[in-house]
Amino acid sequence: MRAEIIAVGTELLLGQVVNTNATFLSEKLADMGIEVYFHTVVGDNPQRLEELLQLADTRSELIILCGGLGPTDDDLTKNVLADHVGVPLVQNTEGLEALNAFFAQRQSTMTPNNLRQIETLQDGIPLPNRTGLAIGCLYKGEKNNYILLPGPPSELKPMFLEQARPLLEKEFPTTEKLTSRVLRFFGIGESKLVTDLAEMIEQQSNPTIAPYAKPNEVTLRITAKTEDELSANALLDQTEAEIMAKVGEFFYGYGEENSLVEVVVDLLKENNLSITAAESLTAGEFQATLGTISGVSEVFPGGFVTYSKETKVSFLGIDSALLDRVGVVSEECAKEMAEAALRLAGTDYALSFTGVAGPDELEGKPKGTVYIGLAQKEGETLITENHFTRDRSYVRHSSVMKGLDMLRRAILNKN
Amino acid sequence: MRAEIIAVGTELLLGQVVNTNATFLSEKLADMGIEVYFHTVVGDNPQRLEELLQLADTRSELIILCGGLGPTDDDLTKNVLADHVGVPLVQNTEGLEALNAFFAQRQSTMTPNNLRQIETLQDGIPLPNRTGLAIGCLYKGEKNNYILLPGPPSELKPMFLEQARPLLEKEFPTTEKLTSRVLRFFGIGESKLVTDLAEMIEQQSNPTIAPYAKPNEVTLRITAKTEDELSANALLDQTEAEIMAKVGEFFYGYGEENSLVEVVVDLLKENNLSITAAESLTAGEFQATLGTISGVSEVFPGGFVTYSKETKVSFLGIDSALLDRVGVVSEECAKEMAEAALRLAGTDYALSFTGVAGPDELEGKPKGTVYIGLAQKEGETLITENHFTRDRSYVRHSSVMKGLDMLRRAILNKN
Repeated sequence: MRAEIIAVGTELLLGQVVNTNATFLSEKLADMGIEVYFHTVVGDNPQRLEELLQLADTRSELIILCGGLGPTDDDLTKNVLADHVGVPLVQNTEGLEALNAFFAQRQSTMTPNNLRQIETLQDGIPLPNRTGLAIGCLYKGEKNNYILLPGPPSELKPMFLEQARPLLEKEFPTTEKLTSRVLRFFGIGESKLVTDLAEMIEQQSNPTIAPYAKPNEVTLRITAKTEDELSANALLDQTEAEIMAKVGEFFYGYGEENSLVEVVVDLLKENNLSITAAESLTAGEFQATLGTISGVSEVFPGGFVTYSKETKVSFLGIDSALLDRVGVVSEECAKEMAEAALRLAGTDYALSFTGVAGPDELEGKPKGTVYIGLAQKEGETLITENHFTRDRSYVRHSSVMKGLDMLRRAILNKN
Repeated sequence: MRAEIIAVGTELLLGQVVNTNATFLSEKLADMGIEVYFHTVVGDNPQRLEELLQLADTRSELIILCGGLGPTDDDLTKNVLADHVGVPLVQNTEGLEALNAFFAQRQSTMTPNNLRQIETLQDGIPLPNRTGLAIGCLYKGEKNNYILLPGPPSELKPMFLEQARPLLEKEFPTTEKLTSRVLRFFGIGESKLVTDLAEMIEQQSNPTIAPYAKPNEVTLRITAKTEDELSANALLDQTEAEIMAKVGEFFYGYGEENSLVEVVVDLLKENNLSITAAESLTAGEFQATLGTISGVSEVFPGGFVTYSKETKVSFLGIDSALLDRVGVVSEECAKEMAEAALRLAGTDYALSFTGVAGPDELEGKPKGTVYIGLAQKEGETLITENHFTRDRSYVRHSSVMKGLDMLRRAILNKN
């Protein structure tokens, strides 16, 4: 099936917003074996959008429209598509209930323009919005098919993954099925991974091997094209084993929506272990990352943000004279912070982060110098010295990811 | 002048690369008063690119092509455009010198395909590449004008800013200039803001008013079209005053790259004030947000993450019996947390966050119920009860933003 993606929004043409939706959808559609031939961005202009739809009809069987489903007058995507295919807009009952509940909960009055968000094409399949109010739609036309998705990525992504993708797979089944498996790696860069697997990647045909670099991790998607799932899994198992023989030491988990923090929290839960932290340069980002996981309270009681030297002394009871002697950007400081946090929180593990986020250097150490400590109730305190690159935000993120990986390896080594 | 941007590259259609070039160019062109009506992405396919050029000729006077100027066989943008306008490609002398110097410096042999990079359209104006090898081009056709730019942003940006933009300004001088101002609002939703400003937005012509919703904030871009900057600012001042009369209570700052946390950290620094926090449901996200700002150590010594009831008692010294009586999702708990943090950190302000991030309810309170406390060295502790919507991540982000706004208002009220 040939597809194209149309993003609607003047803010995109003014350069205020990057069209990451097209990138996200393209990646997911490629995985489904749907070929995307064009991305287009058009402003909030009904005539130009209609002209574009006429053109898209001549070249694509699946036309995905993103943005312009909101409550304001310049949100016109739905109206233009309804006119284009010649059906009226109707209110979606579930959407209306969600809208009323939203305003009731906020104890505020709904203005009438909000009702625009829950209108959808008559005879279309409505796509509920779990993270927002605007309803999406899959409309099967005589010749072509259209999907309407909201513009904010926080709404578009779950709506595509949870609503649109399963519908597409059901409505347009293919005889040859693509079965994918995602392997996730931490601690190896994309170019190193690709070099280590060069021979496999060059000779790939079925399964295909596609590496993706993400901040501080690399994923490999291996995809088999077969007629049944059983033979797909056999093919994937074999390729995975070959990959693992080469770069298995960096593998941490499976799955598209997985993450290092989820793997670590699961490991803590399974082993009935707990974690705390004392954070300097990361300023709470490690703990906030734990907090993204629902139910983390089982394994994480809380911890400390000791950004200044003074709070390292007053919150954690570290000897001020020691810090004056060795500096806060030091192995010793990381050790003291982790051990004090472990003692105060009474957990099985405690991570500490101290270093130079940048942009300026600190205590004569260049930006990116980070000491991470892992104190253990049973076992010695482990310290790593790291030299992270790029900007302040990347140094902090790299620190959090490295801390998670140290904890993951410590739990695995224990077992 | 009407413009459109065409990005060429199959990697964009596979979702491996985000089309940030279109965003960058759009922003710069908007500043020059050049209106961008379309972005398109097309793969490395000569036929589809030629069809797109034919379409672009019918609707744009300036057509900017990005990508596909490199040395490999799938770099075909230059060849397709040369055929399209009917001129041959010629080698660029300066480009050839730079290419030879590059290979001499690396002491490696140049393969013949590298010569493709320094070819340019006969009769076109070559655009030197300061940060790479591929030569760009401005080609003035009979009816339309074309610019060829390289795909890597590190080459495209300097080539556009240093070569293409001055040429465009010289070749196509405009009398009218666009001047923009961005106003930022917190605490008002996009639909409410648009309703409050409905009359102004309907009657807008010059300046134009464009609202844009971001997570937990709304921005308004007002843009004046004038012949000089002085009259532009007068127009913008008048429109801003009208906007402020209606929704000024929600305004927090100016600028496209600004944020609530930057405004708050600046206010703390200017007034020589300091902040700490005790975070339950946000689990460190407030403090990590402060940590994104370079130099925040002047005003933020550190704080506490008290995720469990036990750490609220052991880290902060809150009475366990009190928490059993009133619950942790309570005004009283927020008050105790903020006041304890203030006392322990010795700062001027302390924020506390306690509530239900979700997905499940807690202590009989629905998800999204959040109490935020602001203890002050001088003045009473302020508490807000909030009912945030959407998912766990949005509830936590809403809490952080609301806490920042409470702090901002407290500092402003003090002065």
